[in-house]
Amino acid sequence: MRRWNGWGDEATYLELPDNGQSFLEEKVGSASPLENASYEQVEANVPASRLEESDLYTTDKKDRILHSRGQSLPDWLAMKSGEIGVFPDAVSYPESTDDVRRLLDQAKANNWVVIPYGGGTSVVGHINPLKDERPIITVDMGRMCRLLDLDEQSRIATFGAGVPGPLLESQLQAKGYTLGHFPQSFELSTLGGWIASRSSGQQSLKYGRIEQMFAGGKIETLDGTFDIPTYPASSAGPDIREWFMGSEGRFGIITEAKIRVTPIAEQEKFFVAFLPSWVNALNCVRNMVQAGIPMSMMRLSNAVETETQLALAGHEGQIKLLEKFLKFRGAGEGKCMLTFGLTHNKSQNNLSLSQVKKIISRFDGVYTGTMLGSRWKEKRFLFPYLRETLWERGYAVDTLETATDWDNVDYLLSEIENNLRSALGDEGEKVHVFTHLSHFYNQGCSIYTTYVYRTGDSYEETLNRWKKLKYSTSELIVNNRGTISHQHGVGLDHAPYMAIEKGEVSTGLIRHAAEYFDQNKQMNPGKLLVDGDLTATSTAEDSTPESSAQSV
Amino acid sequence: MRRWNGWGDEATYLELPDNGQSFLEEKVGSASPLENASYEQVEANVPASRLEESDLYTTDKKDRILHSRGQSLPDWLAMKSGEIGVFPDAVSYPESTDDVRRLLDQAKANNWVVIPYGGGTSVVGHINPLKDERPIITVDMGRMCRLLDLDEQSRIATFGAGVPGPLLESQLQAKGYTLGHFPQSFELSTLGGWIASRSSGQQSLKYGRIEQMFAGGKIETLDGTFDIPTYPASSAGPDIREWFMGSEGRFGIITEAKIRVTPIAEQEKFFVAFLPSWVNALNCVRNMVQAGIPMSMMRLSNAVETETQLALAGHEGQIKLLEKFLKFRGAGEGKCMLTFGLTHNKSQNNLSLSQVKKIISRFDGVYTGTMLGSRWKEKRFLFPYLRETLWERGYAVDTLETATDWDNVDYLLSEIENNLRSALGDEGEKVHVFTHLSHFYNQGCSIYTTYVYRTGDSYEETLNRWKKLKYSTSELIVNNRGTISHQHGVGLDHAPYMAIEKGEVSTGLIRHAAEYFDQNKQMNPGKLLVDGDLTATSTAEDSTPESSAQSV
Repeated sequence: MRRWNGWGDEATYLELPDNGQSFLEEKVGSASPLENASYEQVEANVPASRLEESDLYTTDKKDRILHSRGQSLPDWLAMKSGEIGVFPDAVSYPESTDDVRRLLDQAKANNWVVIPYGGGTSVVGHINPLKDERPIITVDMGRMCRLLDLDEQSRIATFGAGVPGPLLESQLQAKGYTLGHFPQSFELSTLGGWIASRSSGQQSLKYGRIEQMFAGGKIETLDGTFDIPTYPASSAGPDIREWFMGSEGRFGIITEAKIRVTPIAEQEKFFVAFLPSWVNALNCVRNMVQAGIPMSMMRLSNAVETETQLALAGHEGQIKLLEKFLKFRGAGEGKCMLTFGLTHNKSQNNLSLSQVKKIISRFDGVYTGTMLGSRWKEKRFLFPYLRETLWERGYAVDTLETATDWDNVDYLLSEIENNLRSALGDEGEKVHVFTHLSHFYNQGCSIYTTYVYRTGDSYEETLNRWKKLKYSTSELIVNNRGTISHQHGVGLDHAPYMAIEKGEVSTGLIRHAAEYFDQNKQMNPGKLLVDGDLTATSTAEDSTPESSAQSV
Repeated sequence: MRRWNGWGDEATYLELPDNGQSFLEEKVGSASPLENASYEQVEANVPASRLEESDLYTTDKKDRILHSRGQSLPDWLAMKSGEIGVFPDAVSYPESTDDVRRLLDQAKANNWVVIPYGGGTSVVGHINPLKDERPIITVDMGRMCRLLDLDEQSRIATFGAGVPGPLLESQLQAKGYTLGHFPQSFELSTLGGWIASRSSGQQSLKYGRIEQMFAGGKIETLDGTFDIPTYPASSAGPDIREWFMGSEGRFGIITEAKIRVTPIAEQEKFFVAFLPSWVNALNCVRNMVQAGIPMSMMRLSNAVETETQLALAGHEGQIKLLEKFLKFRGAGEGKCMLTFGLTHNKSQNNLSLSQVKKIISRFDGVYTGTMLGSRWKEKRFLFPYLRETLWERGYAVDTLETATDWDNVDYLLSEIENNLRSALGDEGEKVHVFTHLSHFYNQGCSIYTTYVYRTGDSYEETLNRWKKLKYSTSELIVNNRGTISHQHGVGLDHAPYMAIEKGEVSTGLIRHAAEYFDQNKQMNPGKLLVDGDLTATSTAEDSTPESSAQSV
């Protein structure tokens, strides 16, 4: 069963290896955990719904609790502490586009706030209800999860937009196809959520981002229905799909999506190499991607991430042998681990591997074959479970990500890491920070940084530490040619920084467009755009921990 | 020198081979040409400008004539007949973003109509001034044509947006790079025009459409400046670049563009094969593109285009030998010519070629090597000159293009061809129609149809024949899952059909966005969107031949 107050399935738990605890103590200090609120405590505090029961939705408290928060660290702290604050008044589970249409007509007529909900995996507050004088309905799309059509000639599959990753892939793979979209949230996140937040998966190097996959579909808005037809490409004016991607529920609800699929490749393999230094590693991956070799993924860990991964991997004996071998081959301290994948027909993969290996050699890298690559594949979706494991030992963990052009990658990465490392210095707290590059483009790549710090003596102190870390780094990113998000979207936490990144006129344009659909800010208000001027019927303040981000 | 009333440079003239004339007579009938107006006749009819001379622009008659029309067939007929109708009152030649800013501020203050002008190669009426009570200024971006910056690490080049294809490529290639954007209008069309109209080039299979190249830049609007930063990718809300691409001057003027470039490939070769039948050819190209082989272009001519190309190629003796050889190998009557290109490193090209040849063999195709491919490369931008050659013999030629998903390609292509072939049946006129597929995607491809018919006894009759052909086929396309344009944009001629294609709510959204920049419809009014409700200061009617398209 899914954890009500944390990540993923209760049956999955990531053990910390024996040396893990001492590693953390060395890096951050010894820690003691905060106490978690029980489900019963939370339920006792849920206020009565402001809506009557109806066949359009349920007002059951459990449904309202389970749809009150996503997976940002502030969400996590709210759930663990039991101080959730605002709950939706009702949760709707539509089973068809008609159901969604009916619900939105009612919402419009009655001035309800509507929050579209996919898998609830948002790490930036996308689905959090904010304090509002109007009743709030969360629309859980999970029942619209079927493969409705597969056109094998045009390679277009039509799905209910609430389909989560595994159900989408199993329905496609049964017919020999794949979408190839594997974000780390894959097990829970949904197709509609990927589209609404411009998601990117681990194998975007081959399959592209969701932008390349989303071909058309149906979107219901308060003020009309969009039925976007599929074309391979078009120059007939602006591309309406692009206006919806990243609209994060402000424009409407995606009910059906047509997506571009491909047959399962003949061969897929993942490989690992080690580069002796960061400079070599950075040049190596840039050369690899810019050579135009058909790969399906790359991930380059910097030295600290490499060290951390090897320390937390378990199999201490094997790892020691590996490190001895690597040191002998010239990749000792400061080495960086590079994982890459090839997904194509066998002859193409053979040629690609030989070309990749040449580039790795040019930068004095040590190619180690598929063993570690296969382990990466096995564990690719497990990382988020680590938060639970560390939490129980008194550590909070969060990630930050951005993307920037190649000429700025090294600089921005260093600035981010330095800022995080020193952000709690005034409290005498150490922060363990490490980074990998992933999602490679000719133009640049994404930078994905993890940071681990000790929880404070209280939830409030823990949250304040997060705010110091997150806000200062977010500001640093958007003021230094980074996007506030490469793959997590904007939601609540990133809204003030998106406004900086895009500037006043562009942000104004998006706001102007939102008004075409929704004059009263009923659709997911406060997300994507900073709604300082929420309608008279909603309060300008809200009680969520993130709200102060809006005043940055 | 550029032709004032036709395509391209006066020094280039495409000769019709000896057998060409008889081929045309057999297909369409013998014809006699209409008389062309002289430049002096046209100039004598240009009305006085409604604007005073200024250092912001010129009101010289020659400049106004040369910026009055694009290259659609109605434009062509207007220029050849001398009945041009409406001229801009002035032409501005800005040399910097500041110049554009200054001009737009004046335009806003004085309620001038503004038409951005790139290379004037539009085939759908993008740059035509329409009758308006307000003064009209055409902004020729041609002086903003320099390479301003090249970031070799991030592979981003910054150009003045008025740079035409050859000048863009020569500045890049001098430094070892290419953009790889080669639309048929390459010799004259400009970067800014490509962006504003969502252009696609012949080698889009490798380099992508302009959507994949345009990374950011500066756009001046009546109501503010957009400075769009470059990111390799972002999930920070809707992508503002995408809102401008295809906006066709309605939102503002692109002054500087940052584009993604790549080093010139180690090897580039073009090849030709012949498939014995259309069914085989269609399956062959779909299999080729869907196999994910790194190619740079494909073009598949149907049987009539193949026959026409070989008939008009000249070298009658050589062609006869080729046909004899092909027939011997099983590709006789009904054969279809497939041109394809490989642009990569040598090992990759070798592997790609072997994989392509296997697929061609599977569909009983005859691979003929690089000879005809090299000829394609030499002549790739010459086709538009054929219009002049045929015009002088009494034939009008125009093209239509769309894109659709694979499951619909064969059906839509047949419908288009049948409709064109019979559209002048009531006048007893034959139309010679042929088609190629190009711009291949996993999902489908573009369909590019050429039609040749006899000019009427008058310009009016000739235009009426075009209207019959164009309007009925455009309607057929958008009602049968085709886009009104894969690569030519919307402009004036396609505006009513874009509204059908996108539907009322999507078209309304684009109109709503345009109002964010331009409340008085000053920016290129009547293009992209049907402005039946032009502001009170402009007339609802205009005198251009295309205007009746708006009532379809």
